[in-house]
Amino acid sequence: MTSIAWTPLGGTDLAGLTPDTFQWSVTDRVAVIRLARPDRKNPLTFDSYAELRDTFRALAYATDVDVVVFASNDGNFCSGGDVHDIIGPLIDRDMKGLLAFTRMTGDLVKAMIGCGKPIIAAVDGVCVGAGAIIAMASDLRLATPAAKTAFLFTRVGLAGCDMGACAMLPRIIGQGRAAELLYTGRVMGAEEGERWGFWNALHAPEALEDAALDLARRLAAGPTFGHGITKTQLNQEWSMSLEQAIEAEAQAQAICMQTQDFARAYHAFVAKEKPVFEGN
Amino acid sequence: MTSIAWTPLGGTDLAGLTPDTFQWSVTDRVAVIRLARPDRKNPLTFDSYAELRDTFRALAYATDVDVVVFASNDGNFCSGGDVHDIIGPLIDRDMKGLLAFTRMTGDLVKAMIGCGKPIIAAVDGVCVGAGAIIAMASDLRLATPAAKTAFLFTRVGLAGCDMGACAMLPRIIGQGRAAELLYTGRVMGAEEGERWGFWNALHAPEALEDAALDLARRLAAGPTFGHGITKTQLNQEWSMSLEQAIEAEAQAQAICMQTQDFARAYHAFVAKEKPVFEGN
Amino acid sequence: MTSIAWTPLGGTDLAGLTPDTFQWSVTDRVAVIRLARPDRKNPLTFDSYAELRDTFRALAYATDVDVVVFASNDGNFCSGGDVHDIIGPLIDRDMKGLLAFTRMTGDLVKAMIGCGKPIIAAVDGVCVGAGAIIAMASDLRLATPAAKTAFLFTRVGLAGCDMGACAMLPRIIGQGRAAELLYTGRVMGAEEGERWGFWNALHAPEALEDAALDLARRLAAGPTFGHGITKTQLNQEWSMSLEQAIEAEAQAQAICMQTQDFARAYHAFVAKEKPVFEGN
Repeated sequence: MTSIAWTPLGGTDLAGLTPDTFQWSVTDRVAVIRLARPDRKNPLTFDSYAELRDTFRALAYATDVDVVVFASNDGNFCSGGDVHDIIGPLIDRDMKGLLAFTRMTGDLVKAMIGCGKPIIAAVDGVCVGAGAIIAMASDLRLATPAAKTAFLFTRVGLAGCDMGACAMLPRIIGQGRAAELLYTGRVMGAEEGERWGFWNALHAPEALEDAALDLARRLAAGPTFGHGITKTQLNQEWSMSLEQAIEAEAQAQAICMQTQDFARAYHAFVAKEKPVFEGN
Repeated sequence: MTSIAWTPLGGTDLAGLTPDTFQWSVTDRVAVIRLARPDRKNPLTFDSYAELRDTFRALAYATDVDVVVFASNDGNFCSGGDVHDIIGPLIDRDMKGLLAFTRMTGDLVKAMIGCGKPIIAAVDGVCVGAGAIIAMASDLRLATPAAKTAFLFTRVGLAGCDMGACAMLPRIIGQGRAAELLYTGRVMGAEEGERWGFWNALHAPEALEDAALDLARRLAAGPTFGHGITKTQLNQEWSMSLEQAIEAEAQAQAICMQTQDFARAYHAFVAKEKPVFEGN
Repeated sequence: MTSIAWTPLGGTDLAGLTPDTFQWSVTDRVAVIRLARPDRKNPLTFDSYAELRDTFRALAYATDVDVVVFASNDGNFCSGGDVHDIIGPLIDRDMKGLLAFTRMTGDLVKAMIGCGKPIIAAVDGVCVGAGAIIAMASDLRLATPAAKTAFLFTRVGLAGCDMGACAMLPRIIGQGRAAELLYTGRVMGAEEGERWGFWNALHAPEALEDAALDLARRLAAGPTFGHGITKTQLNQEWSMSLEQAIEAEAQAQAICMQTQDFARAYHAFVAKEKPVFEGN
């Protein structure tokens, strides 16, 4: 992975990133990530886990990216942890080694949650195991009617709790449906997933990526400082009491009211113009 | 606002309230609130925020109200914080002044949550910004097919977290759908909202208020002491562990078993009669 | 109730259990429970509450049961606490006695949550009051189109918060729909319940029990140690922050990676065979 260059204030430009294990591009402040093993439906490896984690950590400080699209590649999103590259080696690890692995995978989710930019998953085809977790850890989820999502952990002899699944999935589709998917490992079809609120919308395969990019550009044209606060609060308030959440939002929104984007919106409204947000 | 008269024990009659910034009536222990600027789709102002907050705080001690209907007015529910009356002045405030405002708006939600009486929102037409929050902070939500709900904060340069939205909305419609509405500020149509569980039911415009009043009267004819406990627990248990919630409910329900309404229900059942509840 | 025999290591065989207040059988590591008063739609009594609680507590240590089916009996699931056997005597109890009762009912839910085995409710007909809570405290829920579910507590003068209802129901069907059912006590129809995510699936009456047993056998043939961890995490993470949940799952899944079932799945995959799990 190209080493990331930091500025004195801790920001960094990520447009020039040339990762080893996935495709990466930045256009108009929208980054597009795509796993790079389409011949095997884009499995994850130790290396890609780590490189994704580091990239999302760097995104928190990125100066040139406002929204991320996690896209599919050649008709599939991600087939999860590779059986040969990941599961085989894990069999021989001791507890210290196993926990190092499960914590690294959890760190990818933490990095996605903490990157401060909305992430849009654009899912076609296979979306299973850790791939389903990546979709779930995204903020918004678009899919095609061919999207096949499964939390396969139980199929490989493990528990359904992986990378935060037992916390996140019930919050998206409800406790009963989440329990079924996590205990059985069965495929959630695309229409079912839309009906349950897992997918925000379905698009034809040829229209999926345009829809994701269009949504990304609209978000990038919005008050991106505010979006970052929205993301923080959407993930931060799960374990707060309602009263605590209301106070936390009073503080968070007061911060946003000091941005220029708030003034820009007001002045545009008075002038009967469309506001142009700059993210500060 | 008519000053509220308190009894020595802290109770108060609210039927005589004559608020300045909204319409208010009390009939058969059901209060009906209606914002009073239908020509501008019922925006909120600094004054109406404060007066609503004080009224819901007083409702916690009301001796003559058991259920509240927050109704629409002339085809619209509420257009949110007024651009000229609220957003304009906020632009010039310092952080102390901004936080005073966001805390006051949050205090309205806290007062609605804490008023101890079920609140039924009856929503026609525009229901946006802080208006959408008022609907969300109600316990039950009825709407017409014309109800247009949007969390507009992002449109005015702010974050989607406002008055508890990032805590409440995911709990009502799921995390993924909530994220879409809060990031984009897009309109949630009425049928979509019913499908997602935001609206409990849709009614034709001419039938909406009767449906809300009918539901309110049925609740008012029920065990209203118990309803108050239901409301408390529904909002109080969000941040409890499941084991803590079960113990909290054991205590709360034991309290209710000491009410006369519990005995009234039993004796009516034995006598094959319909119980008449008195709320104590 | 047949006294439960414990081994030195704390395990116990439950196949021989002969409970007084419900039917019980164990076949192929699947236990089937069925309330035993079909003539009265299977109400609960003080004795059956206590015996159910003790049985689910013993199930946590059972050596011969991996999955539980809580079945209906003669067209009905459970009519809740019996008016004559339970409500009548409660009327005369003091607070100490009332709290002893509500805590015992809560202890049944805690025991179901804590038993470490997936519970599948198979619901036909009446499923009300504490019966609806038993269905809700199960992990998976199948029903027939004739299933009638109601949280009747408000009808007997009490609050909707009973045995954890205000915590569990919003998490399954969303806060708004839960509030409606708990305030009004109205019946949730079977199709409505399926649409809302309360029921995982509907089956014809004559097919319900086979569907539940088939699902139970599939779970029992899976990595049952992992299932127990899934159950723990699904209930344990409600009140954790997202970051805490991710760390908790890193630890929990690392434990599962030390089971032989994980290795069995890997070796079966490499050998292109179907894994045979043994639950260790």
